[in-house]
Amino acid sequence: MLARLLNKDGTLNIKPKGISIFKQKDFHYSIVTTNWLNFFLVITGFFFVINVLFTIVYLLLGSNEIAGIIHDDKVGYFWEVFFFSAQTITTVAYGRISPVGVAASSVAAIESMMGLILFAFATGLTYSRFSRPKTKINYSKIMLVGPYQNGLALMVRVVNYKKNQLVDLSAEIILTVNILVDGKRTRFFYDLPLEQQGMGMMMMSWTIVHKISDESPLNGLTQEDLEDSDAEILVIIKGSDDILLQNVFSRTSFRASKLVWNAQFINIDEFDEVGNLQIDISKMSDYIIIPSK
Amino acid sequence: MLARLLNKDGTLNIKPKGISIFKQKDFHYSIVTTNWLNFFLVITGFFFVINVLFTIVYLLLGSNEIAGIIHDDKVGYFWEVFFFSAQTITTVAYGRISPVGVAASSVAAIESMMGLILFAFATGLTYSRFSRPKTKINYSKIMLVGPYQNGLALMVRVVNYKKNQLVDLSAEIILTVNILVDGKRTRFFYDLPLEQQGMGMMMMSWTIVHKISDESPLNGLTQEDLEDSDAEILVIIKGSDDILLQNVFSRTSFRASKLVWNAQFINIDEFDEVGNLQIDISKMSDYIIIPSK
Amino acid sequence: MLARLLNKDGTLNIKPKGISIFKQKDFHYSIVTTNWLNFFLVITGFFFVINVLFTIVYLLLGSNEIAGIIHDDKVGYFWEVFFFSAQTITTVAYGRISPVGVAASSVAAIESMMGLILFAFATGLTYSRFSRPKTKINYSKIMLVGPYQNGLALMVRVVNYKKNQLVDLSAEIILTVNILVDGKRTRFFYDLPLEQQGMGMMMMSWTIVHKISDESPLNGLTQEDLEDSDAEILVIIKGSDDILLQNVFSRTSFRASKLVWNAQFINIDEFDEVGNLQIDISKMSDYIIIPSK
Amino acid sequence: MLARLLNKDGTLNIKPKGISIFKQKDFHYSIVTTNWLNFFLVITGFFFVINVLFTIVYLLLGSNEIAGIIHDDKVGYFWEVFFFSAQTITTVAYGRISPVGVAASSVAAIESMMGLILFAFATGLTYSRFSRPKTKINYSKIMLVGPYQNGLALMVRVVNYKKNQLVDLSAEIILTVNILVDGKRTRFFYDLPLEQQGMGMMMMSWTIVHKISDESPLNGLTQEDLEDSDAEILVIIKGSDDILLQNVFSRTSFRASKLVWNAQFINIDEFDEVGNLQIDISKMSDYIIIPSK
Repeated sequence: MLARLLNKDGTLNIKPKGISIFKQKDFHYSIVTTNWLNFFLVITGFFFVINVLFTIVYLLLGSNEIAGIIHDDKVGYFWEVFFFSAQTITTVAYGRISPVGVAASSVAAIESMMGLILFAFATGLTYSRFSRPKTKINYSKIMLVGPYQNGLALMVRVVNYKKNQLVDLSAEIILTVNILVDGKRTRFFYDLPLEQQGMGMMMMSWTIVHKISDESPLNGLTQEDLEDSDAEILVIIKGSDDILLQNVFSRTSFRASKLVWNAQFINIDEFDEVGNLQIDISKMSDYIIIPSK
Repeated sequence: MLARLLNKDGTLNIKPKGISIFKQKDFHYSIVTTNWLNFFLVITGFFFVINVLFTIVYLLLGSNEIAGIIHDDKVGYFWEVFFFSAQTITTVAYGRISPVGVAASSVAAIESMMGLILFAFATGLTYSRFSRPKTKINYSKIMLVGPYQNGLALMVRVVNYKKNQLVDLSAEIILTVNILVDGKRTRFFYDLPLEQQGMGMMMMSWTIVHKISDESPLNGLTQEDLEDSDAEILVIIKGSDDILLQNVFSRTSFRASKLVWNAQFINIDEFDEVGNLQIDISKMSDYIIIPSK
Repeated sequence: MLARLLNKDGTLNIKPKGISIFKQKDFHYSIVTTNWLNFFLVITGFFFVINVLFTIVYLLLGSNEIAGIIHDDKVGYFWEVFFFSAQTITTVAYGRISPVGVAASSVAAIESMMGLILFAFATGLTYSRFSRPKTKINYSKIMLVGPYQNGLALMVRVVNYKKNQLVDLSAEIILTVNILVDGKRTRFFYDLPLEQQGMGMMMMSWTIVHKISDESPLNGLTQEDLEDSDAEILVIIKGSDDILLQNVFSRTSFRASKLVWNAQFINIDEFDEVGNLQIDISKMSDYIIIPSK
Repeated sequence: MLARLLNKDGTLNIKPKGISIFKQKDFHYSIVTTNWLNFFLVITGFFFVINVLFTIVYLLLGSNEIAGIIHDDKVGYFWEVFFFSAQTITTVAYGRISPVGVAASSVAAIESMMGLILFAFATGLTYSRFSRPKTKINYSKIMLVGPYQNGLALMVRVVNYKKNQLVDLSAEIILTVNILVDGKRTRFFYDLPLEQQGMGMMMMSWTIVHKISDESPLNGLTQEDLEDSDAEILVIIKGSDDILLQNVFSRTSFRASKLVWNAQFINIDEFDEVGNLQIDISKMSDYIIIPSK
């Protein structure tokens, strides 16, 4: 069996080959997607290194350039200069220690300028991490093939239970199969047209439906056919978060083994005693088997 | 009577069930949508707590680590350290009090770094709240069903009287009804096709029109039919603010009781004495009854 | 003659009526669109007022709360406190003057916190003004009606000579006329379909063409007809700046008097001696009259 | 032979004429696209000049206005004031030197305010440079004309091997030729319709295909025809980066000499031993010649 093309979380499971690992890297991407611990270690480490470099410069300039140092032993002197540097880069500058010579003053001016820009830059990175959209679309665990308008349809249910509304949505379902062509496994992609390709606003849940018409690539295929060809069904959703005004891109994929035949999603709408509509998220993947005629 | 699906202000009136309340929360969403008083209390409270935590650390390090303290009674000492901490986190650092030991200097360096990033972060939040688009689309209080091109049409009037122009607009009108299916109330949604689905620029007012053709889901329905099925008509508008370059998403809904039959919006265009077009916003919901033939 | 609906620069010339002037205001819009002098006066004035307010608070707290003041006459004392406040709000805090009491220290902590957030906020406003897209689309001074593919067409030429490329473009041309209906001048809008509604990238110049087919609202109309009905032709262009990744919305309008009949834009493409294509921007509005058959 | 319209990197090779060079400039564009060395020289130079201007003001105000200067020779005094100014603009302000008079205090307040805003502004520029999307789309070195579905097609292969996924893609292929019209070389553009104009997500590689049907502008043309008319084929791709949530605009062009006839791209899909799909980027431009029937 072949590996899946798209992981459950929507990341691509295809590896590039014949290209340097360095060209694949993108610093902006890495810093935005790494975990928070790594992120803070990188940021802190970076400032520590800059700080040490400036400390070395001040040490080389000599003690006449800096006023206010009270520890005259070697270690104490080092720490005084180190923290003078730290207080300069953060611009906190208590002022007990200050540069007096032209050389140290120049270096300190440069360090404080760098500090201002680098800290604002670090903040920009932090904020852009923070404001990245969190996953808001939840997919049913399975895909169904079941009765629909005197025929069959492929169905998947998606739900957003966050308060941020998803608006201006559109979906795409793609069937991909691997078939032997001249003895070599070759990928084919088929776009499966949807009954409703988009919607202005998601009413918390959405059942995306591909009607298996005579023209559908799925027409006449069985579970065995799909498994034999390592079929994978990709679901791609695009929308906007109406509060944070961000685009939302979401993807997942279902392997043939996640298909349930002759089934229908159960209705998860409920009206409470005062007539409010409630949607039971915990049952979003629940279905009933419909005996085929 | 069932509750409405969409509130007048466009927020969804559907509640999720079977899902932890914590999973429904989104910190970014909450901080952006709460009122300004809450927002400032949260921000101030946060900095206060951080400040107190650092104060405790300095107190634990002992008085030898910090120079310049002039109050030697316990309470006075506490406050001196507390404000030293506050002056460090804001990097204001007057310098009367300053760290001398390696430990306090290290803690102060960390505190000032944190301060720089946290304040910039708080500013990012403040600015993203400030720059969120304010509601710019006003809807008529009622929807009309009235004569249109030898037939009938459903109409709603929208107006934007702000100086920011709305451009690249598109609208969607959705009829939703609740019908008994196997004894259970079930929601159905129908997209009502519009005479003009979009426009490049809004000329201050726009009457959105769905022609009730033979294929229209509204064709043949009466006020009683709509009320019996708890009908609700959703209006969804998407556009861009051409000055702030933000997307604008606006929604509202009308219950059946807000429909006026055999009516037409009055013309709110007026030309003043020098030929300037004026639009009388105060009459945007005014209509006249057209005697049916 | 009626006034135009859209000014040459694309701003709307329609006035709202019956709505409070305050509701028409939008602070974000005003601060972003006012001129730079006003902007800096507002910002500076704002900080000055805040500074004075805090100065008053420090004065009320009394001179025991602040250490380091060397001027003891009334005026000198005022200025010392005033600049202490200024140095606190900017966090520059030289440290000669510093708060000693709990009250003044608390106020100073609040002032420096406010300063940090307000200055970053002011910077956000400054930057969002700076990064707003400058007009990049230039329109020909006139619109032509001239021969096109065995018929007639309405044509306007647009040019972008900035280095930022315009991509993902789409255009819309709307004819608006005022016609007497029941004795009252009423606006009508007609969308004029274009030969090429959009383009992936603008090759510096673009002639937007509406073919006057039999179905065109312009079909059979003369210059007199258009002038009598105060006709105005709106041109709306949407695109993206491929460097600054901003949407670009541009609009203008032509009154009937700006129409030139039986004319064609001259070709402004030129190839220099080495085969480079040059576009003569200075001739973008030039045309030749084609004798009608 | 004429020069190309579009350079390989997608920048336009058309020059504007008859328009002042200053009007073509855009400061925002320049500062965002210049190299990092120029950028930092401009930023540093700007702060240096501001700093010197303030230094001159402090010098004019005289030595009574500033306390704490220890060098009383002329050169030493200059440097003390210069670094006082630098420490004020960065708000680092060690406090050894501080303003005492009203005049110097006012100037220092203004300088620190300017410093806060200018540094944040510089950071904004730095960050907007950093976060600009890097080229993510690689094009095959050649374009092919080869067999496709019982006919011929024009094909180009694109690849993205970065971790940032490209989603919501659309492509456009435009043929441009220069033909003699009334003795003058005139450009013509033809949109070539694509087999698949867009895709929800790029599976690392995409072969964009224009089928040369009977209606295709390329139908019946030979390599000589295309070279004689200085044909150039533009490829324009638009998409979104799903991690950084930025639009991605990419373009390139192929001259007639880069066309390979009767050829087909080789399959670069490979399955490793555990069934993972790998794409061999190094072979993305490789093709095989198909003997024509």
